[in-house]
This record gives sequence, C-alpha cells and structure tokens, in this order.
Amino acid sequence: MKIEDLRGVVWRFNERLRFIVKRGEVLEEEYEPVVKEIIKRVKQEGDKAIIEYTEKFDGIKLSEDTLEIPYEELENAYNEIEEDVRSALEIAHERIRRFHELQKEKSFFTEEKGILLGMKVMPLERVGVYVPGGKASYPSTVLMNVVPAVVAGVEEVIMVSPKPNRYTLASAFISGVSRVYQIGGAQAIAGLAYGTQTIPKVDKIVGPGNIYVSVAKKLLFGVVDVDMFAGPSEILIISDGTCEPSWVAADLLSQAEHDELAGAFLITTDEKHAIRVKEELEKLIEDFPRKEIAKRSIERFGTIFLVEDLYKACEVANHIAPEHLELLTEDPFSILPYIKHAGAIFLGRYSTEALGDYILGPNHTLPTGGTAKFFSPLGVYDFVKRSSVLYVSKEGFDRLAEPTESIAKAEGLFAHYMSVRIRRET
Amino acid sequence: MKIEDLRGVVWRFNERLRFIVKRGEVLEEEYEPVVKEIIKRVKQEGDKAIIEYTEKFDGIKLSEDTLEIPYEELENAYNEIEEDVRSALEIAHERIRRFHELQKEKSFFTEEKGILLGMKVMPLERVGVYVPGGKASYPSTVLMNVVPAVVAGVEEVIMVSPKPNRYTLASAFISGVSRVYQIGGAQAIAGLAYGTQTIPKVDKIVGPGNIYVSVAKKLLFGVVDVDMFAGPSEILIISDGTCEPSWVAADLLSQAEHDELAGAFLITTDEKHAIRVKEELEKLIEDFPRKEIAKRSIERFGTIFLVEDLYKACEVANHIAPEHLELLTEDPFSILPYIKHAGAIFLGRYSTEALGDYILGPNHTLPTGGTAKFFSPLGVYDFVKRSSVLYVSKEGFDRLAEPTESIAKAEGLFAHYMSVRIRRET
Repeated sequence: MKIEDLRGVVWRFNERLRFIVKRGEVLEEEYEPVVKEIIKRVKQEGDKAIIEYTEKFDGIKLSEDTLEIPYEELENAYNEIEEDVRSALEIAHERIRRFHELQKEKSFFTEEKGILLGMKVMPLERVGVYVPGGKASYPSTVLMNVVPAVVAGVEEVIMVSPKPNRYTLASAFISGVSRVYQIGGAQAIAGLAYGTQTIPKVDKIVGPGNIYVSVAKKLLFGVVDVDMFAGPSEILIISDGTCEPSWVAADLLSQAEHDELAGAFLITTDEKHAIRVKEELEKLIEDFPRKEIAKRSIERFGTIFLVEDLYKACEVANHIAPEHLELLTEDPFSILPYIKHAGAIFLGRYSTEALGDYILGPNHTLPTGGTAKFFSPLGVYDFVKRSSVLYVSKEGFDRLAEPTESIAKAEGLFAHYMSVRIRRET
Repeated sequence: MKIEDLRGVVWRFNERLRFIVKRGEVLEEEYEPVVKEIIKRVKQEGDKAIIEYTEKFDGIKLSEDTLEIPYEELENAYNEIEEDVRSALEIAHERIRRFHELQKEKSFFTEEKGILLGMKVMPLERVGVYVPGGKASYPSTVLMNVVPAVVAGVEEVIMVSPKPNRYTLASAFISGVSRVYQIGGAQAIAGLAYGTQTIPKVDKIVGPGNIYVSVAKKLLFGVVDVDMFAGPSEILIISDGTCEPSWVAADLLSQAEHDELAGAFLITTDEKHAIRVKEELEKLIEDFPRKEIAKRSIERFGTIFLVEDLYKACEVANHIAPEHLELLTEDPFSILPYIKHAGAIFLGRYSTEALGDYILGPNHTLPTGGTAKFFSPLGVYDFVKRSSVLYVSKEGFDRLAEPTESIAKAEGLFAHYMSVRIRRET
C-alpha cells in the first residue's frame, strides 16, 4: 500500500492518481477478431456453433437437448443448499425487490386545449442475464441482475451461465428466472442476441463477464441493448481517522480480493491513521485464503492519499469517480452534497460495502473505472422503454399549423410542409 | 408503392415484411478501419489531427483559433433569420422545454429502523451534441437534442457541426448551447470523447450523423456514453380508411423525402383506401423538390399491407417496431393499448408527424430500425446519472450482519465476510 502525499500540491497532475485512474484501459481490439468470428458463426449456425465453442472453451460436451438446464434442477438446488444461506438469500431477495420497487417509472400524460401529450412506459419483453461460471459464479450476481428486470415487468428472463453452482441455481429459482442455459462466453452473448434453434432472441443483455463477454456485448450493441461494460472494480474510502483502522483495512481488502486489477484506495486527512491502516492491512492480508490475488492488487494499485481536508478528499474522489465510495467520517451526511461521481455511496462506519453487495437492497452492479461520471447503477430503468404519445384535435392543429409550416420551410423539407398544408386545405 | 396482401396468411413469414425490417442492416465493419485510424490520431494529436481531417473531408481550412464559432455569431444568426421562423423556433423551444420538464427524475430515500437507503439523481456535467452540417443542418435537431440536456441541468452543452447554417446557429442560441465548434465526422466525435487543446472532454455524445459518426460513437462507447444509433428512419401508418387518402399519402411522403433508405409503410383494413392512397401518392410526388429521393425510397421499400382487422394491424406494427406510428383511425385511443413497440405514437387524423417533428413537445430523436423494442425517445433521463446512497447504524448493522456473513461464505469471499465480522468483534 503506497502512501502518497497530496497536501499542498496541485493534485490533478499527480502521476500516481493518473496511474490508478487509467489502470482499467484494456486493449479490447486484440480480442475483436476472435469474438467477431464467434459471433458470425453463431449467427449463421446457431446451436451447432454454440455447442462446438462450449466444448472448446469450457470443456463441456452438450447437445441441443442439454443446453438448457431443466427447471427442476433449480428447485432441487434451492432445497439442497444450507438453511442459513437459503434464508439469507431470501432476505436479500426481498430487500432488493423492495428497494427496486421505488425505481418504477410511471406512464404520464398532460393536456392542454385540443392536445394530449404523454409518455407510455413499458417493460422490455425478454432479457438475457449473463452470470459468470465456475468459481466466480455468485448467487448475489443473479439476484442483483434478475430482480430489477422482474420488478420492471419483463415477461421472460433468460439466464446463461457456464457451469453454474448450486447457489447460483438456487438464486435463479428465488428470483424468478424463466430458464437457464449452461453456456458462456461470446457464444452465449451471440446466441441471446440473434436467437438460435433452442435459445430465444432477447431485447437486452445484462450481467458481468470476462473480456470476451464484454467485447461481444459491445459489438452487438444495437442488435440488442446491453448494460454498461464492467471494468475492474474499485473501492475508495474517505476517512477522517475516527473509524477503527482495522475496519478500514478490512473494507479495502474486500475489494482487493476480487481480482488483481481491483483497486483499493483510501483518502484521509490524518497521517497517523494512514500509517495505522497500512499496518492493519499488512497484518490482515496474511490470513487470507485469497491472499495472492489481494496482494497483487494492493501492491500494484493500492494507495493512501493524504489531503488537507475533507473537501479536497471529495474533489479527489470525484476525479476518480469510484464504483464504491465509503465515507467513514464522523458526520458523513455533511459531505454527501460534495460527492458528484460514485456508483454507490456508503455513509458511516457500520455501512461496510459487503452489506451493500449482498443484502441492503440497492444494486451492486455499478459503473466502474471512472464511468460513474455518466453511468448509473443497474436499475428498473434499465428494463423499460418509453414511447411518446401525441394526440392533436382540429383545434390544436389550427393553433400550431402555421409555426410548423415555417420551420418545415426553413429546413427545406417540402413534404413536411405539405402534410400540414393539405390538412388546412381539404 | 407495393400493395401486399396479408389477409388470411401467416404474416410473420412474409418475405416483403422481412425485407423492409432488415433494410437498415449496414456493414459497419467496412468503415471501422478508417474510423479507428481517425480516432487514434485525434487521441494522440488533438486539434492538429482534427484540423487536417476537416480540410480533407469537409474542405474547410481551420486553425486552432477558428475551430470554435464566436458566440456573437449565434446571436447574429438569431437576429438575422426571418421573423416567422424565429418566432416558430421560440414556440417550439418553449413547448419542448415544458414537455421535457415532466420527465425530470427526483432523488429519493427510504428509511427503516437504523437504515437509510436512497438514490441521488444528478445531471451529467458536460455533453456534446452532434448536428449534421450543410444541407441537412436542421434547427429542429438542435432544439430536440439540447433542450433535454439543459432541462436535466447539464452545465455545459458543446455543439459540433460542420458548416452549420444560420437557422442551426439561431437554434443553438435559443436553446442555450454553451459553445459551438464547426467540425464534424468521426474526428469531431473523437475530439469530444478525449478532449483536445481547445475542445473540452464531454461525458456523453448525442445527435444523429452519417455512418462515420455512428461507427465512431459505437467504438468510443465506454470512453464516453453515447445515445442510440440512428438508422434510416421510418413511418408506419395504420388506417381504417376514414382518413382522407391525400393526407395519408402526404404523411408517407414526409418520411420518404428524408433519404433513400427511409421507410414509408401503411397498414390498412380497407382495400379501396389502399388503392386511393397509392394513387394520391403518385400524384403528390410529382410536384416535389425532393422527388428523386422520395421516389427511390417509395419504389424500393414503400409498402401497403392489407390486413383483416385493426388488431392484426397492431401485431404487424409491433413486429416492425417503427420509429413513427400514426393511428389514423376513427377511435385511435381504443387501439393504443395494443401498441407495444414504437418510438412515437400519433393518434388521430390531425396528428401528423410533422407537428411532432417540430413543435408539439415530445422528442423527435427516436429509435429506428426496430430498436423501439428496447430503446426510448431521447429524454431528460439520458442526461442524468444516479448514485445509490446507503447508511446503516449499529442497530441496522446488527440486524443484517449474520445473513451477510452467510452469503459471503457461500461465495467464498473471505474479506467480505471479515469486513462484517471485524465490526462485530471490535
């Protein structure tokens, strides 16, 4: 964990800051040719190509009959998992559902003499949820991606996941997934985008994945809608030194254990606190099952920034625009208005990120790598679409016909002009 | 205009229907290498590369001092244009602003014992608006793309447009654009995405453009946010034969005049009406300044579908998912609930598309080429981002600590578990 002193300097030009902000820049181009080939073959051949790629990349031999996991297996998984985990997933599901209900958008209309204008809000019909497979197959990923779709009113939620574990299948059962296919990678994304003999075409694909999945989603954007691109994740903690250093250290580690590119950053006004957190972290990390991953992330990117005051801390935080931001300060609400860019903002010493990852209710799918400047957490708003509604009576028409003609003429679009003119003359 | 009879057949397998739905499929791949090169050079060289490309593609010699159009020129343009057009643009601006105010999303929070959860909604800081140049430089494009950003609270709206005409500049003045650069193409998009010596980096880019602009937006998605991809536009009219055939024909033409790939479709239950519309259209088209464009679009794609009843008409419409849908029927509101996919729905014989394009208030930037299945009209929601807010007290923490630990253990994420555990033990 590097300690970097930003006090009394023009912090925006700090090398270290630039280094950690840019760490997610991946050369996607390198992966494009192979992903394009996969997409092309799946588009042309459907299931056949998916089955071949699944054997090649995931080492699983499937047939058209075994691409889909029978629904009973989801229920079996639900019954088989440990009682405490099942109960915890049920609590999480209920809390996530309740929070997302608050995000529901309503259709509306407005009237004036002879004119009614409105916006009709409708759920997408069918969406695909990608859940990474094997060891990184997380039940919380299922809940966080499926629940907003179900709350939005999506009729059919298709999950794809290579080698899903029983927790993942149990979560699919709890959250109301319609069907699960045991496939992954770019081939699964292409299958969902175009549809195959057995896989239905979806309108939108969400969920995290490796670089092949990300590149496939980007290439197919437009054919289907996709969610934001998940880069390496990060936590940024702002601390005034009032929180136990061991708690701060544990929270930093909970991000660092995700992967080697994960970022764990602390901004503090208290130099002694900085040193104490560093020490606690070095102590804690030694007991870790995922020690090697966490160590590499901490050594390469882990940084403690020293700043003069909390306002400067907020400025630096806005510059980084972190996925997770913890305000471990005495009075966190007083600095909330200064936070402009962050996926999720955790306030106060007991609001550790893990609670938000699993159980509090807001979504854990958040914009990474500085994209919090323009992207939002996954939400119900991602699973609806809107149509404008426009009704004009003769009276309303008479009022607006002339100015419409003026603009049409200025734009040189004669038929636009004519479509109004003809209604005034006949 | 081809008449296609869908009565008594399985219309989903109709060749003609498939042909018009797929007409927008463009081989973007062909344009990728050249656009990638442009992006790379602009990223590395900034203004220098933009100035070179502007001379090469647009034939304009610019320097770093003339990239930006002085703000006085916008005001001058406003004062110079014809009185009726200025007044019409002001009316349009005010109506568009009023409608978009209704789309504003509010921050919210919810409380329970020891827990506060919320969503903070904030405007993007800086956005770029692309406006095509030359002949297709439309003042309405400026209003429709800028107003939602301004209503959302975006601080700085940067417009780029090669060779903007005075109507376009006047609209920029009316709608509150911060600055205008007279550049276009992929180089303008790259300049906005990365920022240059004179052009500020933006968070999101919106606005229609040619294939180079579309490909650049797609490639840079993630570096910045972008709006949906504009394909060739279309109108679909559902008519029960009660509307004057000449009105229907004029509305079809108002789409066909846009470009050769534009689609103009009619679905009707009345065979005689179909023939009458076709005749009116052939008559009207002869007087058109943009006759050649409209003719090519109508001859190639223009289609009248005959169906048994209005429910089937709605089904076919949902299949096409048109950008513009006109319900020119006696009781249009009775079929509105059957419409699932359309960018904008115009109800009744006086609600011609041109009114919506210019003056009614809802946005005219709409999803094209069937993407209304998952995309929405441009709106205020496109210019905000959200952050989750999570506060947990000791009491709330105690309530949720155990189930959080259960899920963390099931996922094998030890530090997640530890970050909770350590708060229970110290």
